[in-house]
Amino acid sequence: LTTTLAELAQLVGGRVRGDEDRPIEAVRTLESAGPHDLSFLTNPKYRAAATDSAAGALLVGEATSDFEGTDLLVAPDPHLALARILKHLHPSARPAPGIHASAVIDGAAVVAASATVGAHCVVGVGSRIGDRAVLHAGVVVEAECEIGDDSELHPGVVLYARTVVGRRCMLHSGVVLGSDGFGFAEEAGTHEKIPQIGRVVVEDDVEIGANSTVDCAMLEETRIGAGTKIDNLVQIGHNVTIGAGSLLVAQSGIAGSTRLGKGTILAGQAGVSGHLEIGDGARVAAASAVFKSVPAGVTVAGIPAREVAAWRREQALVQKLAELWRRIRALEGRLTKEGDDRE
Amino acid sequence: LTTTLAELAQLVGGRVRGDEDRPIEAVRTLESAGPHDLSFLTNPKYRAAATDSAAGALLVGEATSDFEGTDLLVAPDPHLALARILKHLHPSARPAPGIHASAVIDGAAVVAASATVGAHCVVGVGSRIGDRAVLHAGVVVEAECEIGDDSELHPGVVLYARTVVGRRCMLHSGVVLGSDGFGFAEEAGTHEKIPQIGRVVVEDDVEIGANSTVDCAMLEETRIGAGTKIDNLVQIGHNVTIGAGSLLVAQSGIAGSTRLGKGTILAGQAGVSGHLEIGDGARVAAASAVFKSVPAGVTVAGIPAREVAAWRREQALVQKLAELWRRIRALEGRLTKEGDDRE
Amino acid sequence: LTTTLAELAQLVGGRVRGDEDRPIEAVRTLESAGPHDLSFLTNPKYRAAATDSAAGALLVGEATSDFEGTDLLVAPDPHLALARILKHLHPSARPAPGIHASAVIDGAAVVAASATVGAHCVVGVGSRIGDRAVLHAGVVVEAECEIGDDSELHPGVVLYARTVVGRRCMLHSGVVLGSDGFGFAEEAGTHEKIPQIGRVVVEDDVEIGANSTVDCAMLEETRIGAGTKIDNLVQIGHNVTIGAGSLLVAQSGIAGSTRLGKGTILAGQAGVSGHLEIGDGARVAAASAVFKSVPAGVTVAGIPAREVAAWRREQALVQKLAELWRRIRALEGRLTKEGDDRE
Repeated sequence: LTTTLAELAQLVGGRVRGDEDRPIEAVRTLESAGPHDLSFLTNPKYRAAATDSAAGALLVGEATSDFEGTDLLVAPDPHLALARILKHLHPSARPAPGIHASAVIDGAAVVAASATVGAHCVVGVGSRIGDRAVLHAGVVVEAECEIGDDSELHPGVVLYARTVVGRRCMLHSGVVLGSDGFGFAEEAGTHEKIPQIGRVVVEDDVEIGANSTVDCAMLEETRIGAGTKIDNLVQIGHNVTIGAGSLLVAQSGIAGSTRLGKGTILAGQAGVSGHLEIGDGARVAAASAVFKSVPAGVTVAGIPAREVAAWRREQALVQKLAELWRRIRALEGRLTKEGDDRE
Repeated sequence: LTTTLAELAQLVGGRVRGDEDRPIEAVRTLESAGPHDLSFLTNPKYRAAATDSAAGALLVGEATSDFEGTDLLVAPDPHLALARILKHLHPSARPAPGIHASAVIDGAAVVAASATVGAHCVVGVGSRIGDRAVLHAGVVVEAECEIGDDSELHPGVVLYARTVVGRRCMLHSGVVLGSDGFGFAEEAGTHEKIPQIGRVVVEDDVEIGANSTVDCAMLEETRIGAGTKIDNLVQIGHNVTIGAGSLLVAQSGIAGSTRLGKGTILAGQAGVSGHLEIGDGARVAAASAVFKSVPAGVTVAGIPAREVAAWRREQALVQKLAELWRRIRALEGRLTKEGDDRE
Repeated sequence: LTTTLAELAQLVGGRVRGDEDRPIEAVRTLESAGPHDLSFLTNPKYRAAATDSAAGALLVGEATSDFEGTDLLVAPDPHLALARILKHLHPSARPAPGIHASAVIDGAAVVAASATVGAHCVVGVGSRIGDRAVLHAGVVVEAECEIGDDSELHPGVVLYARTVVGRRCMLHSGVVLGSDGFGFAEEAGTHEKIPQIGRVVVEDDVEIGANSTVDCAMLEETRIGAGTKIDNLVQIGHNVTIGAGSLLVAQSGIAGSTRLGKGTILAGQAGVSGHLEIGDGARVAAASAVFKSVPAGVTVAGIPAREVAAWRREQALVQKLAELWRRIRALEGRLTKEGDDRE
């Protein structure tokens, strides 16, 4: 699928600086791109690599539109442009509809005629698989689940009973939705299981990364808001609610009953304790641990997490502790000497 | 299944304050409960929500038995009461015994007649599946394993060869028991694998959360003590021993050869280094990293972890570092001024 | 398989101190070894346990060759000797070649006659499985993948389309290679997916632990260098490159586009941000978070990570903050008193 720079510029609402008719065959990295490839420069770290690149053209933002030495596709939002161009050049193929002969589908399950159910899948009683949904090989959907139209479940995904997945969701391999929440009552030194009878609800347009886990609620719903994107190996405890459009980066975790607002961000390996409120647009820095609620719009960092500017100041001061001791000792020395002098 | 408040009180050894004959159909959250539902107030954070709730009755502890505005079920231990009531109202159904036609069972494996083996399961040579045990879809049990009576393995669990699982255990989807420990010898810059020929032994009444991993011992046993409960995405290294009744919260990890005593607790994302001794009843706070052994009964926090009270004091002092600098500068200023005055 | 101490010494280039003809049947731990077993003492922590051991012989290094009370096998590198002896006494059996009847192999896939494909495996169009490769039960290999000779994929491994695995690799259960990288462009508050059209390349002699995940590149390759060993529950983001012979310990994670050099080490639960350069031989301490590039050969620790000696000094000073306050207050008291004295 070959196109020209001008056509791509039109696709993304951008403009060309240079040869509008340059043929573009693929998007490639700065290192590997050749004269018929588009590459991109959106992070100033890679400016030197862009200068060395043999790419025929570069996708850049307005701030980089003065870059010299190659044709440019200048886009108002180069990341968004990249998404659109890749979708244009690499339209995703979906597998043919139908149920593989090795799949085990309960007689009381409903699978849309346009859906695909791969080899060795299992679909339980009362579950419904929507139009054009794709279950790749080895997916297990237990009883009474719903999978919305156009959702895609990669190999080995497991949905416990009663899980609801919205439309246009993507669940990557090894995702487990609806496993029991971690709830126990102590009785004479032993841990008595508190039954977890709720479910998981994943709203529309959610993506969940490989081997991430979302526990069912003890009573009602653990809910992932529409358009939220979750990376790999993320843990979401029972009764958690995540607002629409949030981003949870790899290996982050949220303990039970915490509520995240809309558009929140947890960076990698961040953790949030249970029963907290994280306001709309709040952000948690990587490797931080949140032990108290965070107001809307606030960014926190550290263990325990606090407002990020305060955390940065403290970290800087921790790194100056040796100097603090030198100043103290100097003062002690002066005072002792002065005391001696006066005697 | 409808019951009355009085019957539930009798079930849990509690008492009713209000209408003993109130019919109860379900346990629901404060937000969604109606007049025929029981809800609960065990965390003072939710007192306002309880006041607003339309729940017909609330389960509370003695400390909250003065709560006004609704019938109360006052229980000596409300968490334990909740566990019992949920089990009463929602008795767990187990699937019918039998082996699914698509399962692949080695001729030399022994599966109890009362056990259930789901679709696409695999059971290897010499393995034994106990009475009433349930293997949900897609479980793989390699050779020479033992699964005790009444244990339940959710979809996609994998047991490597020689793994032993006790009675009444629950393994959630994606759990891997018995994968090779991480052991390598260095030889001229390359890493030579040290064979991991031991196994994993899980004692009775253990629950392990989704996608958690337990490595086999290099030589003998990695052992999870009876009644221990492990959350999702937890890593347990080779040769580790965990005492009975411990709790390991999500995303915590234990490096090789460390021994945890009875009743220990690792909070979320806590880590423990290898070759340590963590005494009975010791606790590690969330997001902490333990680099030296912890005596019995001690709670530690921080990176590196230290006694929790010391860690809290230090954190408070770190947050006062700016003030410390102000005080130092004030002293320096006074001394300089006094020096000037005396000249 | 019984051998003598002398034969084992010859195998590992070591020497015997004691009875060269002692028969050895197995390697066992200090606690469980008997007179016909070899145990080992390589960590001084276990010297007392070695003294109490009933082991017939101990494997030790030169530094411990003065240990009294039992026969010794003194080896130049006892860890490497242990690897060799275990391989000798416990040669690994590989399953018989052939494709299980329940496996679903695309007609356009190529499986070597000497390879083993277990029950319920799926191999997609255009994929190639090398000589003597083993796919255990339930492995899913999507389209256009390559698996090199002598590689072993444990139950439930998933390879997304276009993944390349080299020779003699071992992938443990639940490993997911090639799931989509976490890449989104923001558009009016929603997250638009950036297609991830690259792949994962795993070079020869790599081992990857249970439930670890490696994302495909956005455009070209996420690459794991030859001989690198990765533990359980590790996350590797898109476009990451890892140099040969690196070690990534359990629950560590690397964000997108970061490059690790050769022989790097990430200890347990360590994290590295995106777009960084980690030089050859650099090391990251457990539970640390790296936010800027690390030069070759340097060890870093802390959150944010800094040179390890600086981090240790700071931690020591943090633990002395209470004393710092006492000294400040003493100075303030003296100055005030002196001021009073002089008035």
